[in-house]
Amino acid sequence: MTTSTEQPPTVAGPLDDGELRAIDAWWRAANYLSVGQIYLMGNPLLREPLRPEHVKPRLLGHWGTTPGLNFVYAHLNRVIAARDLDAMYVMGPGHGGPGPVAAAWLEGTYSEVYPEVSQDEPGLQRLFTQFSFPGGIPSHVAPETPGSIHEGGELGYALSHAYGAAFDNPGLLVAAVVGDGEAETGPLATSWHSTKFVDPARDGAVLPILHLNGYKIANPTVLARIGRDELTDLLRGYGHEPHVVEGSDPVQMHQAFAATLDRCLDEIAAIQRRARDEGVSERPRWPMVVLRSPKGWTGPAEVDGLPVEGSWRSHQVPFSNARDDEGHRRVLETWMRSYRPEELFDADGAPVPAVRDLHPGGDRRMSANPHTNGGALLRPLRMPDFRDHAVEVTEPGTGAVEATRVLGRFLREVMRQNMHDFRLFAPDENNSNRLGDVLEVTDRTWVAERLPTDDHLAPDGRVMEILSEHTCQGWLEGYLLTGRHGLFSCYEAFVHIVDSMVNQHAKWLKTTNGIPWRQPIASLNYLLTSHVWRQDHNGFSHQDPGFIDHVVNKKADVIRVYLPPDANTLLSVADHCLRSRQYVNVVVAGKQPALQYLDMDAAVVHATKGIGIWDWASNDAGQEPDVVLACAGDVPTMETLAAAEVLRGWFPDLRVRVVNVVDLMRLQDEREHPHGLSGAAFDSLFTRDRPVVFAYHGYPWLIHRLTYRRTNHRNIHVRGYVEEGTTTTPFDICVMNRIDRFNLAIAAIDLVPRLGATSAHAREALVGKLIEHRAYVRTHGVDLPEIRDWQWSGARGPVTESPGPLVEPESA
Amino acid sequence: MTTSTEQPPTVAGPLDDGELRAIDAWWRAANYLSVGQIYLMGNPLLREPLRPEHVKPRLLGHWGTTPGLNFVYAHLNRVIAARDLDAMYVMGPGHGGPGPVAAAWLEGTYSEVYPEVSQDEPGLQRLFTQFSFPGGIPSHVAPETPGSIHEGGELGYALSHAYGAAFDNPGLLVAAVVGDGEAETGPLATSWHSTKFVDPARDGAVLPILHLNGYKIANPTVLARIGRDELTDLLRGYGHEPHVVEGSDPVQMHQAFAATLDRCLDEIAAIQRRARDEGVSERPRWPMVVLRSPKGWTGPAEVDGLPVEGSWRSHQVPFSNARDDEGHRRVLETWMRSYRPEELFDADGAPVPAVRDLHPGGDRRMSANPHTNGGALLRPLRMPDFRDHAVEVTEPGTGAVEATRVLGRFLREVMRQNMHDFRLFAPDENNSNRLGDVLEVTDRTWVAERLPTDDHLAPDGRVMEILSEHTCQGWLEGYLLTGRHGLFSCYEAFVHIVDSMVNQHAKWLKTTNGIPWRQPIASLNYLLTSHVWRQDHNGFSHQDPGFIDHVVNKKADVIRVYLPPDANTLLSVADHCLRSRQYVNVVVAGKQPALQYLDMDAAVVHATKGIGIWDWASNDAGQEPDVVLACAGDVPTMETLAAAEVLRGWFPDLRVRVVNVVDLMRLQDEREHPHGLSGAAFDSLFTRDRPVVFAYHGYPWLIHRLTYRRTNHRNIHVRGYVEEGTTTTPFDICVMNRIDRFNLAIAAIDLVPRLGATSAHAREALVGKLIEHRAYVRTHGVDLPEIRDWQWSGARGPVTESPGPLVEPESA
Repeated sequence: MTTSTEQPPTVAGPLDDGELRAIDAWWRAANYLSVGQIYLMGNPLLREPLRPEHVKPRLLGHWGTTPGLNFVYAHLNRVIAARDLDAMYVMGPGHGGPGPVAAAWLEGTYSEVYPEVSQDEPGLQRLFTQFSFPGGIPSHVAPETPGSIHEGGELGYALSHAYGAAFDNPGLLVAAVVGDGEAETGPLATSWHSTKFVDPARDGAVLPILHLNGYKIANPTVLARIGRDELTDLLRGYGHEPHVVEGSDPVQMHQAFAATLDRCLDEIAAIQRRARDEGVSERPRWPMVVLRSPKGWTGPAEVDGLPVEGSWRSHQVPFSNARDDEGHRRVLETWMRSYRPEELFDADGAPVPAVRDLHPGGDRRMSANPHTNGGALLRPLRMPDFRDHAVEVTEPGTGAVEATRVLGRFLREVMRQNMHDFRLFAPDENNSNRLGDVLEVTDRTWVAERLPTDDHLAPDGRVMEILSEHTCQGWLEGYLLTGRHGLFSCYEAFVHIVDSMVNQHAKWLKTTNGIPWRQPIASLNYLLTSHVWRQDHNGFSHQDPGFIDHVVNKKADVIRVYLPPDANTLLSVADHCLRSRQYVNVVVAGKQPALQYLDMDAAVVHATKGIGIWDWASNDAGQEPDVVLACAGDVPTMETLAAAEVLRGWFPDLRVRVVNVVDLMRLQDEREHPHGLSGAAFDSLFTRDRPVVFAYHGYPWLIHRLTYRRTNHRNIHVRGYVEEGTTTTPFDICVMNRIDRFNLAIAAIDLVPRLGATSAHAREALVGKLIEHRAYVRTHGVDLPEIRDWQWSGARGPVTESPGPLVEPESA
Repeated sequence: MTTSTEQPPTVAGPLDDGELRAIDAWWRAANYLSVGQIYLMGNPLLREPLRPEHVKPRLLGHWGTTPGLNFVYAHLNRVIAARDLDAMYVMGPGHGGPGPVAAAWLEGTYSEVYPEVSQDEPGLQRLFTQFSFPGGIPSHVAPETPGSIHEGGELGYALSHAYGAAFDNPGLLVAAVVGDGEAETGPLATSWHSTKFVDPARDGAVLPILHLNGYKIANPTVLARIGRDELTDLLRGYGHEPHVVEGSDPVQMHQAFAATLDRCLDEIAAIQRRARDEGVSERPRWPMVVLRSPKGWTGPAEVDGLPVEGSWRSHQVPFSNARDDEGHRRVLETWMRSYRPEELFDADGAPVPAVRDLHPGGDRRMSANPHTNGGALLRPLRMPDFRDHAVEVTEPGTGAVEATRVLGRFLREVMRQNMHDFRLFAPDENNSNRLGDVLEVTDRTWVAERLPTDDHLAPDGRVMEILSEHTCQGWLEGYLLTGRHGLFSCYEAFVHIVDSMVNQHAKWLKTTNGIPWRQPIASLNYLLTSHVWRQDHNGFSHQDPGFIDHVVNKKADVIRVYLPPDANTLLSVADHCLRSRQYVNVVVAGKQPALQYLDMDAAVVHATKGIGIWDWASNDAGQEPDVVLACAGDVPTMETLAAAEVLRGWFPDLRVRVVNVVDLMRLQDEREHPHGLSGAAFDSLFTRDRPVVFAYHGYPWLIHRLTYRRTNHRNIHVRGYVEEGTTTTPFDICVMNRIDRFNLAIAAIDLVPRLGATSAHAREALVGKLIEHRAYVRTHGVDLPEIRDWQWSGARGPVTESPGPLVEPESA
């Protein structure tokens, strides 16, 4: 153990004796509480020798990283108080959960939000017992931890979360510890480049602290084994000026770290002054710290003859037999007593003034910083009227409008009115996704070199584009979690890159729904475009509409999926999503010119209901239909309407009902999703026994998964994306996946027995159309003009190629 | 346009006039063919002025990166010939698809594998027309492209694929172009650290070429805008010695690039000599190239008054109206003629000798290098007998075996017999996943600094561990695609990190199944462990069994999912997977001590059938059961058996059938998956009308999606993971998700009407057990001993807490 001696030797540095003692006492207290959380369920103040029943039967937690996290916390507390900083702390090594819990308890925040965990011996007993214990709290930094916006489960997002928090918060300092394990992940490795996207004039500062603990679970870390020169090169290459603090002697380390922290904060202040007062717009070289300290610092040096401190054996629980093995128990007691708890806690078990005095008070406590409970700071967006951007629709199923371009105009106005707490994020796809109009009121964020020929790049731009979906997502999460608003637009195929991130965010939302002191935050909004049905540009390797499947596995109360069929519906959906809280909203909408169906009033009604019969496209008025054609998604909707028209041409008295789905969760049972339809409501749309041909945007099986409990499920036949594709035309992709108008019409014909002999005739003709299409497209490289230019004419009578009324009388 | 003049000025460099002319001619030819592919469908040799009908109606493709890719290709050809190199080429900017297609055609490979695309004018016409055309080839580097192992759809994996190809191929040079767009992605950013995992003695070399084109779709790139010093720092920080080649004048660039390439190859040769001949084991500083050239190099400088060459406007198709706009068409013709096709192609349209002479012949052609068609080199693994590692099982449902540790022993023997073409990959989890025994015969790969205390680290280790799932996956893909074997072990929760990568690999497999000249490669094998039911260590944020859902959306002919219930079944499944070809095999198995059910012979039969009734756990012999208890996954299997025991205790004459599923795809309809059961076979297991309580490892909806067509689907009630959890005990996680024995038994009781009054009694008792459990676990932090220590005793009569035979006579 390398715990400091009672009489610290004199080491040169900025700390006087009092400061040194205060920081060391705070650190010892946090370390003591951390070990206690991992090991103990009784005797929290060591009032008596440790007995087996004081030790938890299951020991879970990560000691290795924790003393380093606590060390940084203690030092940040000094400078927050000294400089009156507004600071928060993102801990990349989130498995060091005992650390921030200990800190929040020492600062009093923990007892404020969880009164039963009071600042006395019974509270301490609860604090220790609850950690990684059934009915208690997780072993990692989690939503339950005051002061955290950063789920400590999956590694890689510490820096992108930190920058997300810093954007538009000019007064905020975000200290971000990056573990050297985490540093090996891809998302973390590229997030260092956030230095090119943070504006020293408008945004806050991030102070990265690369913590070289040296070891992961069972391996050394790469960055700890490349030598100091190469590491310095790497960090300078990321745009930083690294300051190295290295060692294990606490006193020396206290002085060195304090000096380094002062220097970094002076540099940050100077950078911000230059940018804000002198108008310097060049990208600065931001300072950062490299902290190289032993893994499991201050823990037992050796257990059972094997090295523990400074080795991978410290990663989790350094020794695990403390309940049953007296030797281990003695090691534990010696270890805990080495922090001298009798100096740190008073007779009641509360932290003594010498410990309490280090940390700042009120909102300046990092565990109570309001930015870390972003919902408390959240202000609703000022919302322009989306109806102002309505597309005129005189006849349904006509026109050629790029839906996302219309959305872009609306987003431009949202941006214009919310220039301090709204941003757009995209992996180099903002303009490709047709949201370019937003650049009329802001620029793309860019703090790296600029050239005169550049297009809308500026340090204070609010459209954030880097070719890293991970970084976009991480920035946005950090931005939302600190109480702001945003939207992530992404090609549908590439959004799988952030599957595990959205997963973690959705679970964060689910958990915070059960934590009363966590205020609701703005929803995480996705616009997925360049979708699977219009991937003619890129080819098969890109095509995957399964992000929807991924998100609907999460808890129903945090997931919403919308498939607006046209521009006006998209506007209404977007307005709703931007106003909403605590959801992951997935909106799928095409960016290519497409038919429009609903005028604004109809679109608002339809988007609000989320599902409905399109009377103008149906001819089953007042009767049960012969067949229901259902659709969800813009391309499936168009093909469904075209199929309805084809059917009407061949079978004028066939009663066809067209049902369009905007809100996918309406399909689910009301017991499974709050948006779910009741059984009766579902039956009134889909009937109890008529055939349903359902054309769906994504993988068809999802519709079955959502509807398997429905009365008429047995008759629901779903067409969707079945993993066929290559670089081909828009219509040909539909044909390859059998979701095109002709295949849908054939499916309907095959399901309605009463059509009799004509059905064979019609079927043959439709197969002929498919053959004609394939030949044409392979020769000309484009779709048949009649398909390319098709518009709905259902309301104006049968289409010309119809052979007229050839329907047989209803037969068996 | 910056195309070289006919009389190149004298520029100092290693190339003599003849070499310079040859390289430039080859480059011009490749560029000409690239432009032709993007634009033309007629008049391929410009025998006449371009007319509208010569131009494709839809212009798709990416010109911007292509001339740079072609430039590198031309230069590599020179050094391959000069040094007799065994070299292949990974093109990160895969959208530059026309480039490698042009190269393969120039080298003759294209016509060898696609004879209809011959080396003459009709072949040229086909070459041009097919590109990004319906029925043709994709616009990016794809499986269809000879010489490629790297799908050019989603960016980020060029380097990890390149290193995967280089491992265990000491004679191979892998040139890897990294686009500066791709360089912003997380996976690419961390894959530079592969320098710490490539052994100069045993492995081949990777030569990264960072191509600073300067622009993405609509933005500049980060690495092009950070200044040369910072970029150099960054690349040195990654462990490289960067050599910069910068400019736009072709002659100067030819000389500079040739000199740089010579220098890099000399350095590589020296590194390998030192390692191989002198035994130097320190990590070398590998050379790399930074190529800064204009985007759309040699393209039109300006179109319609706007800059094109050297701007983001070159990214895709530099101007799009060439069919209809005469001005644009003239620009196109001038552009294409600037390459002087009359010097490059003979009267028939074949490349003239001056062009053909540059490239090497036979297998030395990069487009024909056998490593890029890995199946052709693939040798089956030498397989030890997995039965040698069988766990003895005398009574089913007893014992406490870590299944993956048993697998580790088998893998150790597989490794021992295949020390040149088999590797294990894991994100720092190999030992945690209980595969540590493999370290008895090899080490972890580690070329960075080593300390005496390190555990099994060596440059020539074959267990590859970096805390980057992306890098593990990319390495393994590269390794498999070049004809070797491997297995990726990963915590189940974290495998979502590579969702989009496995997606792309599965699509590659699907596509290659339709390409006759592509030989089958070894399957991509996943072992998912530390699974959702045993995440007591880490907590809720980690828990997600949805990777299975993700993969089953891919084509049925490339996806296999196995859920072996115990160690012997796992051995049999692993043996099968390691022998298989062209699949993505997902194997889910726990690593904690667990019950064993089947002896080796039974396990082989069960794994081979993939699904079956466990007679020893059933008591419905010769009759229809009252209820079917089905299960898939180790924990659900244990809970199901315990539920069967509970039911038997309460209702001795209740006919219970236990069905266990190993091969999940057996559930699907035989028309949908080749492993699918026929309707009759399914009905014989699950009955046509009896209630089924199905305990499934993952999200329950997947079972519905797989079985919705089955006769008895309406009676299948699935329990699975429903997104509940926190840090708690193994059994409590089951209770939270209602998949525990008591809840399963209650579900069964509720579904069998004939149980009558006793059912209320039993139900109440079981609910009591749940309450008792929850209270106990919250007090003691561990599961009730009777649950923790439970073993199957079904064969030995009713369990003690049974109230005895209280069953009512069968009622309505």
